[in-house]
Amino acid sequence: MTDVSPVLDRADQNLTSSLDNLFELLRIQSISTDPAFKPECRKAAEWLTAYLTSLGFTASVRDTPGHPMVVAHHDAASADAPHVLFYGHYDVQPVDPIELWESDPFAPAIKDMGDGRKILVGRGTSDDKGQLMTFVEAVRAYKEIKGGLPVRITILFEGEEESGSPSLKPFLEANAAELKADYALVCDTGMWDGDTPAIAAALRGLVGEEITINAADRDLHSGLYGGAAANPIHILSDILAGLHDETGRITLPGFYDGVEETPANIKASWETLGRSAENFLGDIGLSIPAGEKGRSVLELTWARPTAEVNGIWGGYTGAGFKTVIAAKASAKVSFRLVGQQNPAAIRDSFRAYVRSKVPADCSVEFHEHGGSPAIHLSYDSPVLTKAKNALSNEWPKPAIVIGMGGSIPIVGDFQKMLGMESLMVGFGLADDRIHSPNEKYELRSYHKGIRSWIRILDALA
Amino acid sequence: MTDVSPVLDRADQNLTSSLDNLFELLRIQSISTDPAFKPECRKAAEWLTAYLTSLGFTASVRDTPGHPMVVAHHDAASADAPHVLFYGHYDVQPVDPIELWESDPFAPAIKDMGDGRKILVGRGTSDDKGQLMTFVEAVRAYKEIKGGLPVRITILFEGEEESGSPSLKPFLEANAAELKADYALVCDTGMWDGDTPAIAAALRGLVGEEITINAADRDLHSGLYGGAAANPIHILSDILAGLHDETGRITLPGFYDGVEETPANIKASWETLGRSAENFLGDIGLSIPAGEKGRSVLELTWARPTAEVNGIWGGYTGAGFKTVIAAKASAKVSFRLVGQQNPAAIRDSFRAYVRSKVPADCSVEFHEHGGSPAIHLSYDSPVLTKAKNALSNEWPKPAIVIGMGGSIPIVGDFQKMLGMESLMVGFGLADDRIHSPNEKYELRSYHKGIRSWIRILDALA
Repeated sequence: MTDVSPVLDRADQNLTSSLDNLFELLRIQSISTDPAFKPECRKAAEWLTAYLTSLGFTASVRDTPGHPMVVAHHDAASADAPHVLFYGHYDVQPVDPIELWESDPFAPAIKDMGDGRKILVGRGTSDDKGQLMTFVEAVRAYKEIKGGLPVRITILFEGEEESGSPSLKPFLEANAAELKADYALVCDTGMWDGDTPAIAAALRGLVGEEITINAADRDLHSGLYGGAAANPIHILSDILAGLHDETGRITLPGFYDGVEETPANIKASWETLGRSAENFLGDIGLSIPAGEKGRSVLELTWARPTAEVNGIWGGYTGAGFKTVIAAKASAKVSFRLVGQQNPAAIRDSFRAYVRSKVPADCSVEFHEHGGSPAIHLSYDSPVLTKAKNALSNEWPKPAIVIGMGGSIPIVGDFQKMLGMESLMVGFGLADDRIHSPNEKYELRSYHKGIRSWIRILDALA
Repeated sequence: MTDVSPVLDRADQNLTSSLDNLFELLRIQSISTDPAFKPECRKAAEWLTAYLTSLGFTASVRDTPGHPMVVAHHDAASADAPHVLFYGHYDVQPVDPIELWESDPFAPAIKDMGDGRKILVGRGTSDDKGQLMTFVEAVRAYKEIKGGLPVRITILFEGEEESGSPSLKPFLEANAAELKADYALVCDTGMWDGDTPAIAAALRGLVGEEITINAADRDLHSGLYGGAAANPIHILSDILAGLHDETGRITLPGFYDGVEETPANIKASWETLGRSAENFLGDIGLSIPAGEKGRSVLELTWARPTAEVNGIWGGYTGAGFKTVIAAKASAKVSFRLVGQQNPAAIRDSFRAYVRSKVPADCSVEFHEHGGSPAIHLSYDSPVLTKAKNALSNEWPKPAIVIGMGGSIPIVGDFQKMLGMESLMVGFGLADDRIHSPNEKYELRSYHKGIRSWIRILDALA
């Protein structure tokens, strides 16, 4: 670590031109899902490549079957500095319904909210152009003051994140040697709140299964057969009801193998966040946590595994009534995984449990719908600690380490394909209206975001 | 009772002309579902009216908004004789696919099967023209020998049984006083097997309910909310799984109120029938009785109440996978009732049970889909005993009293609208191919069916 004050000062002095740079990028209509905007996507990639080149990167537009990638490299001042891969995406969501925008989505502007807050409005301000530019502008200020960079940086900007990233895996595979770094920095997430920065350190894994219970060889009349013939909906209900015990724990043998308790200090930090069952569930019309008893909603959604039935169907489901006993019934079931839970072992345990509940004259079919382990930075990893301290120095409240209930594909891909962990830091807020009309990014997120990356880069050296 | 031998002899002598009469009726193409055959339906009604008039009935064609009814009356020889209502239907099913018929469906013929069996082939031979004519020809033989009838007879022939009987209830309501008798004789069922006549004495009732469990106010992402938010499919599965205990009994409080054990002699008679779980369930690809333990499949389907889930749906049910927690989930549930079970009480008990399982932050909606009590002749009713003895005297094996798993609407209507129980006797066999190409009726069914009704009429006097 060095004295970063001059670099931070430079970022402050640069703010007007940093906004100009961002606004140039925001004016490019890089909507990836709509083929009409294909030239605009390329234009954004070319703009980024040119700008990174101007900062001293070796940067290039790299073609894919879809929209191009931008890859850029810059050495560190010191040969033994770590190597980081920074990821962001330059493509944006469509702007429909356009009539709900208060101003042109591709004519970005700063609005003064009157209460001291200023916001940047326009498509991509928060997701993800504003975020990725916090990093780029941090690099610029750092170089301007220090002449070099504290870490070796490879940048990967994608242009298909909002349209399912079809080219990403092949590109990572084809360019693994070039892209592999010590770890990745991913800037596509948010803060806990306007004063509290957050590092997402754990993403739950997922196992998806579809099961079909087959009973009689045809649909039966419930008058003729009811009471004697197996009803596959009963069998299925029984299976699904048996997945949880009365305390909300999952009953599959071995299910909790590899699940560790969250460290007390992490849990304590979550308890300060004021996220109660009432306010978390109140937003969706509920109030009572439904999972394992005695755990907070944050722990339940960030740090505990789950079993959820995502869909169920069987028998007559139309209007009116039909006294049928169905020949078969199906459900889609998924498990969210944490820690070291093994997706294959959990799938096996689930299948064995299901088979044990199917009567001898009935049968079950399984269809696999993907499986991936949980991804997590160790809570005591040095990288995490350094980033946490750096963020805590910048913002009014200390940074918190959070989990995320779902998965972020890019992080899984980095882990699986490049053997690289990701540090997820971002400055978005929950009310940024990403994917919606009138998307915004706080000016403060942009400004302090740049300053945050300066501190993090310096800390990682 | 009188000496019926001369009447039975007359029926034997009449057989050729009885067949001629039936064949005249069979040649009329009285397909009720197809408007093109509307004149043929009227023609069948008129033919029956004329024939009954020729036998001494006061008979008339009675218009309805659909196809006409035939109503006919004949007094008994004795003023204190019972009054019976005989029901049958003159309409038939369509004949498609016509190319699968081995002969013209409306050119009835007798076929010699070579093994001593003769069959009548043609649409309506078994369902229901052949059956209703067994009764009419019995009446004819009785009158020819005795000059009068042992019971007062009202006949009701319907022309819309194969198309949902839309005119029946209004007609019963408008003509209740004319049609009300001491009990009804319904000839639209079958024998147990070719040697064993059967009387259907019990029809299960039905309660239908649709339930929808509402949880969050929108579909949720299972990554963000899984483990904390209520999943309505889990709640529903738990409710449905809890309807039965491990012995297959239904757990609803009060559910078995009004359910009586089947008399030992009736159960013993069923045990002689050779209907095992293997052969009953084997036909539909199953082998293990799924309902209450320790009861035969006949008892389970004829004499025991059930709870069946007839349909279930919720969440994502399309191709692939969606990690959604649904806002709601629904099921259609029906209960088959026996004995004195009260449909309203069972609906209430079910609803109370469901409500007790719904968490306080979720809700449930109920939709009623009909309710009717079981219908049954008391196993020791004198009418039943007389008919049973009469049938046992005619056929190689004693008549058995059976239950039927489903309901027969006409019997429920007679019970509800005319306060009249029904004795269901018929001579169809399981392989008669009713509703299918090459429908047939055994010549023996027709001949001994006529003789059976002679014996029954005489016994009922």
